[in-house]
Amino acid sequence: MATKHILIVPGDGIGQEVTAEGKKILDRIAAKFGHTFTYDDALVGHAAIEATGDPLPAVTLEKMHKADAVLFGAVGHPKYDNDPSAKVRPEQGLLKMRKELGLYANLRPIKLFDELLEASSIKPEILRGADILFFRELTGDIYFGEKGRKNNGDTAFDIAEYSRFEVERIARKAFEAARTRRKKLCSVDKANVIETSRLWREVIQKIAPEYPDVEVEHQFVDATAMLLIKDPKRFDVVVTANLFGDILTDEASQIAGSMGMLASASIGDGTCVYEPIHGSAHDITGKGVANPLASILSAALLLDISFGMKAESEAVIEAVDKVLKAGFRTGDIADAKTPKDKILGTAAMGDQVLAQL
Amino acid sequence: MATKHILIVPGDGIGQEVTAEGKKILDRIAAKFGHTFTYDDALVGHAAIEATGDPLPAVTLEKMHKADAVLFGAVGHPKYDNDPSAKVRPEQGLLKMRKELGLYANLRPIKLFDELLEASSIKPEILRGADILFFRELTGDIYFGEKGRKNNGDTAFDIAEYSRFEVERIARKAFEAARTRRKKLCSVDKANVIETSRLWREVIQKIAPEYPDVEVEHQFVDATAMLLIKDPKRFDVVVTANLFGDILTDEASQIAGSMGMLASASIGDGTCVYEPIHGSAHDITGKGVANPLASILSAALLLDISFGMKAESEAVIEAVDKVLKAGFRTGDIADAKTPKDKILGTAAMGDQVLAQL
Ligand SMILES: CC(C)[C@H](C(=O)O)[C@@H](O)C(=O)O
Ligand SMILES: CC(C)[C@H](C(=O)O)[C@@H](O)C(=O)O
Repeated sequence: MATKHILIVPGDGIGQEVTAEGKKILDRIAAKFGHTFTYDDALVGHAAIEATGDPLPAVTLEKMHKADAVLFGAVGHPKYDNDPSAKVRPEQGLLKMRKELGLYANLRPIKLFDELLEASSIKPEILRGADILFFRELTGDIYFGEKGRKNNGDTAFDIAEYSRFEVERIARKAFEAARTRRKKLCSVDKANVIETSRLWREVIQKIAPEYPDVEVEHQFVDATAMLLIKDPKRFDVVVTANLFGDILTDEASQIAGSMGMLASASIGDGTCVYEPIHGSAHDITGKGVANPLASILSAALLLDISFGMKAESEAVIEAVDKVLKAGFRTGDIADAKTPKDKILGTAAMGDQVLAQL
Repeated sequence: MATKHILIVPGDGIGQEVTAEGKKILDRIAAKFGHTFTYDDALVGHAAIEATGDPLPAVTLEKMHKADAVLFGAVGHPKYDNDPSAKVRPEQGLLKMRKELGLYANLRPIKLFDELLEASSIKPEILRGADILFFRELTGDIYFGEKGRKNNGDTAFDIAEYSRFEVERIARKAFEAARTRRKKLCSVDKANVIETSRLWREVIQKIAPEYPDVEVEHQFVDATAMLLIKDPKRFDVVVTANLFGDILTDEASQIAGSMGMLASASIGDGTCVYEPIHGSAHDITGKGVANPLASILSAALLLDISFGMKAESEAVIEAVDKVLKAGFRTGDIADAKTPKDKILGTAAMGDQVLAQL
């Protein structure tokens, strides 16, 4: 019986719709397990720019620091995508949050629910049994180095940077996680070309002997992009830099059937943030068709990691499993064989999960 | 009836084995079509380091400048992969060659031979009809910017850079290619985070009106990594930066069944270079089992692009198609249903293609 304060930060696009379902599930878990969860919400991204001019208003950041955990939606807006010279952008809110909260490790579990074995574009026999846990570094790399223009704006540059400390910090998290799983760690870099990757590989090699029970391999990012699709079962824990992690985990979403199924946990030394890996998806915003399961599964990660509520977390995952077993699907995970009346909208899907709790 | 001089640069690992097959095919084409092809060879990569201490000896570069075209193998050696602090590396030979020859555009056609529809880990119904032509920028980006260490070696950095000129140059090639195909161009970047991508997007937007017949879309690299597997048929021509192109084309190899099938052409203002997209593959080097078709198809690109020999190029592709139709496979493209006696080694596979010419 615990009392916890959760900040809901829907952000933009479908962020609003999906976090509403995540919150519904948290509410039910509190009632069922006798916890008291209090909530607040805050603006970020385009929504925050519209309201305050700032993609991460100080009040949002303050609320985040004070909360026990944050359930986050998504940020982004087509307006900025079409205007590469825009100075204020929704994504700055997300990146600044990650930096300010020190969220250096982004955990992205890629696991296929049995029922979705046919939903992917990858063959079932390739997917069956795949279970990967990505550790994406989240506060360094080309995302946070100096960037700008020179030669009267005719040349653009971005600086990628990593320190030993930054690499070691996330690498240790990944080694520790591998210990609790199948004891395999794949470190992904591009050490044949870039210097940050050479440092990355050096650090992994240096600390590996401290984890003799973990089998370590190094792969180049290009080869990994291929192997993930060719033979996803060969991976257990994967640790990689910010940019490579961004690309590889989106790709790996196909292993889980759909991006709409993937949750993530961003952890650091303070408040942790839980968010779907999908984006704001403005093409389907407001239509009530977005898959809320990534947000609901993010809530499950929140319960487990931030609150240490293992049973509660598993109850959510089991409820999702039951809903899928009962044949319910959102559009993104439906296939030709799904009966029309089993294809649900965002809120109806949330209600089905609720009904199993 | 033409006289042409071709430089064979096998490089490392399976490079030797596969370029030998590519050359065999070029020889036959010359005889069949009444051309005179003369050859020379040269060292690059680990092989060149061992012999001369330099991954791209001056004599190799000189021969390249003088040749009408270069058939290239692969570079790399596990020795350097395990030693991130090595100062001299095989890959430097490849990168310096690209820079010195001004090979700014790397064309990577991703096309599935009908017969290999079942060889991929992706479902046949997703793949059928997929046909993508990648334009990977090859002489800029984080590959060629300043890189190094600071803070007593504790921090590593890499600088990514693009100028308008560099982006426009490859973008125009891609637009022109799209005109001769399905008239769709997808430009891939990460303009929501990095400045080089913002410049990239600006340049594409600026020149797009000059190609009103080409439909342009912009995608983020993470979304593209997902869409390539989810729905490869939506892509026609894809243009992207050096690093993103490296990652996405290796991933896309799964669309063609195997990396062992993919050829590439690196073009610039002087001699062009043709090479498989696969690497040196030391795990299978010397075993005679590497798939030579990527090198043979690279020879086909060479005939077409450098020599303007369309019929000759098509004859090679048709020969490969016939060999596949006859059921012959190397290990990488064989499946459970392939009879043992149809699984061929490198040279035997080359001989089968020869027999069809
Ligand atoms: C929106 C964007 C800045 C972000 C990123 O690149 O990190 C997103 O793709 C993600 O993966 O969380
Ligand atoms: C070997 C390596 C430097 C090279 C690259 O990254 O360009 C290779 O992966 C390629 O795609 O040609």
